[in-house]
Amino acid sequence: MGQDRVQTTSRILSLAKQSIARCKKLASFSEDAGGTRRTFLSEPMRDCHREIAEWLRPLGVPAQVDAAGNLRALYPAAKPASSRLLVGSHLDTVANAGAYDGILGVVLAAALLQGLDGRKLPYGIEIVGFSEEEGVRFGTPFIGSRALVGTVDEELLARTDSGGVSVRRAIEDFGLNPAEIGRAALNNDVLGYLEFHIEQGPVLEKQGLPLGVVDAIAGQSRLEFVFTGRANHAGTTPMDHRYDALAGAAEWISAVESLARGVPGLVATVGMVEAKPGVANVIAGEVRLGLDVRHGANDVRIPAVEDLIHQADEIAQKRRLTVRCDTKLNQKAVAMDPFLSRQIEEAIQTVGCKPHRMVSGAGHDAMILAERVPAAMIFLRTPGAISHDPAESVWVEDVAKAIECGLQLLDRLALPPAIQTRTDRA
Amino acid sequence: MGQDRVQTTSRILSLAKQSIARCKKLASFSEDAGGTRRTFLSEPMRDCHREIAEWLRPLGVPAQVDAAGNLRALYPAAKPASSRLLVGSHLDTVANAGAYDGILGVVLAAALLQGLDGRKLPYGIEIVGFSEEEGVRFGTPFIGSRALVGTVDEELLARTDSGGVSVRRAIEDFGLNPAEIGRAALNNDVLGYLEFHIEQGPVLEKQGLPLGVVDAIAGQSRLEFVFTGRANHAGTTPMDHRYDALAGAAEWISAVESLARGVPGLVATVGMVEAKPGVANVIAGEVRLGLDVRHGANDVRIPAVEDLIHQADEIAQKRRLTVRCDTKLNQKAVAMDPFLSRQIEEAIQTVGCKPHRMVSGAGHDAMILAERVPAAMIFLRTPGAISHDPAESVWVEDVAKAIECGLQLLDRLALPPAIQTRTDRA
Repeated sequence: MGQDRVQTTSRILSLAKQSIARCKKLASFSEDAGGTRRTFLSEPMRDCHREIAEWLRPLGVPAQVDAAGNLRALYPAAKPASSRLLVGSHLDTVANAGAYDGILGVVLAAALLQGLDGRKLPYGIEIVGFSEEEGVRFGTPFIGSRALVGTVDEELLARTDSGGVSVRRAIEDFGLNPAEIGRAALNNDVLGYLEFHIEQGPVLEKQGLPLGVVDAIAGQSRLEFVFTGRANHAGTTPMDHRYDALAGAAEWISAVESLARGVPGLVATVGMVEAKPGVANVIAGEVRLGLDVRHGANDVRIPAVEDLIHQADEIAQKRRLTVRCDTKLNQKAVAMDPFLSRQIEEAIQTVGCKPHRMVSGAGHDAMILAERVPAAMIFLRTPGAISHDPAESVWVEDVAKAIECGLQLLDRLALPPAIQTRTDRA
Repeated sequence: MGQDRVQTTSRILSLAKQSIARCKKLASFSEDAGGTRRTFLSEPMRDCHREIAEWLRPLGVPAQVDAAGNLRALYPAAKPASSRLLVGSHLDTVANAGAYDGILGVVLAAALLQGLDGRKLPYGIEIVGFSEEEGVRFGTPFIGSRALVGTVDEELLARTDSGGVSVRRAIEDFGLNPAEIGRAALNNDVLGYLEFHIEQGPVLEKQGLPLGVVDAIAGQSRLEFVFTGRANHAGTTPMDHRYDALAGAAEWISAVESLARGVPGLVATVGMVEAKPGVANVIAGEVRLGLDVRHGANDVRIPAVEDLIHQADEIAQKRRLTVRCDTKLNQKAVAMDPFLSRQIEEAIQTVGCKPHRMVSGAGHDAMILAERVPAAMIFLRTPGAISHDPAESVWVEDVAKAIECGLQLLDRLALPPAIQTRTDRA
C-alpha cells in the first residue's frame, strides 16, 4: 500500500469518525429530554439546521431552508449553469429514535463535500436534509420529499397533528411561507438523487458486507382481516360444535408464513391480532388481524395477496366461519435508476467490497424522488438489524467505506457520458 | 292414555309453566336496571329470598337463610329424625345474566314439593338456594356450597370485593352472623344432593334430548403461555431471519385444536391471545396465550396438558423462540354418585326419554357438595347453547320432563334399599 493510499484511508477514517460524532450531536436536538424525537419543524429541527449550516460554512456552501422546511445547500459545479446531483436523506425522527436513520444520509453528503477538498466537478452537488419522512407528526410521511417533486397539495397542507395544528400552520410557525412551497420543487437541471441510509434489516450483516445497492423499494399491501365465528363456553362446547375464530385465524397465520417462505424476496407478516372476548375460558367469536405484504415486484406481491385472501376464504368456509378483509394500503414497488445503481455497484467494487443488490423493504425519500429524477440508494450494514431504537448503530469502518464509495461514485459520474441531465424525466 | 295420565301431564305442564314464570320473576331482582345481575348478598338477593319463601309458605315449608346467605327450607320426612335429600342450585348470577342458570334448579326443587301434593316420603327434602356460585363479587366461586361442606375459612372470609368489602363484612351487612357459618355445615343425615341445571352447551340439543345425566364434572387446567422472539421490521426482515412469536403461537394454537379433536371428550381452548407490539408492520416479539383444557378423567386431561407443553417447547426450539408457561388452575375431575346417577337414568327412561350420560364441562355446586355427600346432576337442554346471556332460555316441555323425572326419582329413592344414610361419607 503506497503512502498516498495510507493517507487517503486515514483521512477517510477520520471523516467517518467525524460523521458518527455529528450524527450523535444531531441526536441531542430533541423534543424529549430522555431520548431523540424530532418531528416536522419542531424547535429542535431549527438547532439541527443551524448545526449543519455551521459544518458547511467553512466549505463555502451556504445552507438554506425551503418553504417545506427542507435544508438545502448547493456545492457549485466547475462551470455555472451545470446540472446538479442531489445527495441527502431526512432529518426528522421517530420517537425514542436512534442517531442514524435518515440523519446519516445528510451527514455523509457533507462528508463527501469535505472529501472533495475543494475540488469542483462538472456538476453541482446539492445537499438535501428532508424535513419529514417518518410521518410521526401528521400521520403522513414524505412531506419534505413531496415538496421537491411538486406533490404537496391543499389536502396535505390542511392535515392536522394531535394538537390540531395544520401542516400549513406548522410551516408558518417555523417562520416559513407555505405559499412558496412551489419554489421548492426541482427544476430540470437535476442529474439524479443519491441517498445513503442504514439498511434497518439483517441482510448485509448476515452476508458480512458493509454496503448494498438498492434495486427497488418494495411495494406494500396492508390489509385487515376479521374472522367471525361464535363466542362460546370453553368447557361446555365440544370440539366438533365449535365456530372458533381464533383456531381459524391461527391456521391462516401459518398459511401466510408458509406462502411467503416459498416466494423469494416476499415478506408477509401478521403482527397484529385481537381476539374477542379474549378470555381464556371463552372460545373466541371474532379475531381481527393485520397483514403486511411486501416485494420488489408488483406482479409477485399482488398475486400473493390475492392468494392469501383466497386461503382466508377457504379456511373460513371449511370451519363455518365468515371472513372479511379491507385493504388499508396498496403501494406500488418503485425501481431505482438502473444507470445510477450500476455506477454505485462499480464504485463499491472499486473500494474492495462485494456489491450486494437488494430490495428495500421500507419506504424512503428516494421512492418519492424517483417520480421526477433518477434515484438511487446505498445501504449501510445495520448491526443487529436494530433501528428506530436508541441502540441503533453503525460500524465506523462501514461509514468509511460509504464515504470512499461515494467519492468514487462522484468521480465516475464526472466522466462522460455519465454526466447528463435527464430532462426527459422532468 | 288414561284420564289419570292426562291429568298428571296437564298438572306437570302447568308446574313447568309456573316454574319458567318464577325464573323470570326472580330475574327482575337485579343490581342493574338494564339486565339481571345479582351477586353475593346484594340487596336484590333479599327480594329473591322473600319471593321464594312466599312460594313455599302454602306448602307449610318455612324458609331460612343460613349464615353464608344460603336459602334453606326443609320439607319434612314422614317420620322425624329421618335423613334428608338436598335439592337445589345457586341464586346468584353473572352480569347481564339469563333467567335460568342456577335459578331453575331452585325453582324446580319447589315445583317437586308442589308435585308431591302434600305426600310425605321416608326422607325429608331440603331446598337449598346457594348464595354464591359464579364468583363474580369476590373472584372466588362456590362460597355458598363451601359453607355446607365446612370449607369456608378465614382466608375466604377476608377476601374483598372491588369496593374493599370483605366476605365477612358482606355477611354482616346483610344482617347475618359470620361466626355462625359453622352451623350451616351439613350433618350426617344427608342422603345426597340433587341439582337440576341447564347444560349451557349444545350436546342435548344436537341429540334432540330434553335431559341428560351428569357422570362427572370435568377437571380443568388453565395455563398461560408466553412465546418470545424478536420484534422486528416487517419490511426489512426476510422470512428466514425472523424470530416471529406470533407465527410460533399460531402453529401451537393449531396443535392444541388438533390434539383435542383426537381425544374423545377432551376440550382444549385458546381464547386469549395478545401480541406485542401488536401492530401490522412489526413482527411480533412476544405473544401471550391462555389455554383451557377440560376432561371428565384426570388421566386424560393431565397427559394432554403435558403433551401441549411439550409441543410448545418443540415449536419454540424449532423457531429459535423461547416459551414459558404458568399453571393458573389445576382442578381435578369430580365424579357424580354412581347410585344416584343410575336412579336418575332409570327415572328419565320411565318418563319416556333416552338418558344421555355426559360430562359437565363447567363447574357446579354439585362438585363441591360431592366432597361430603353423594351428589348428582340432571342437565336440561339449552336452546342454541346460549347461557350467561339475556337470551338464555329453556323449552317448557323440557322443564315438564325434568319435573316428571324428578318426581319419579323421589319415589324411586323412597323404595328400599334406596333410602339409606351414607354416614360413611361424613
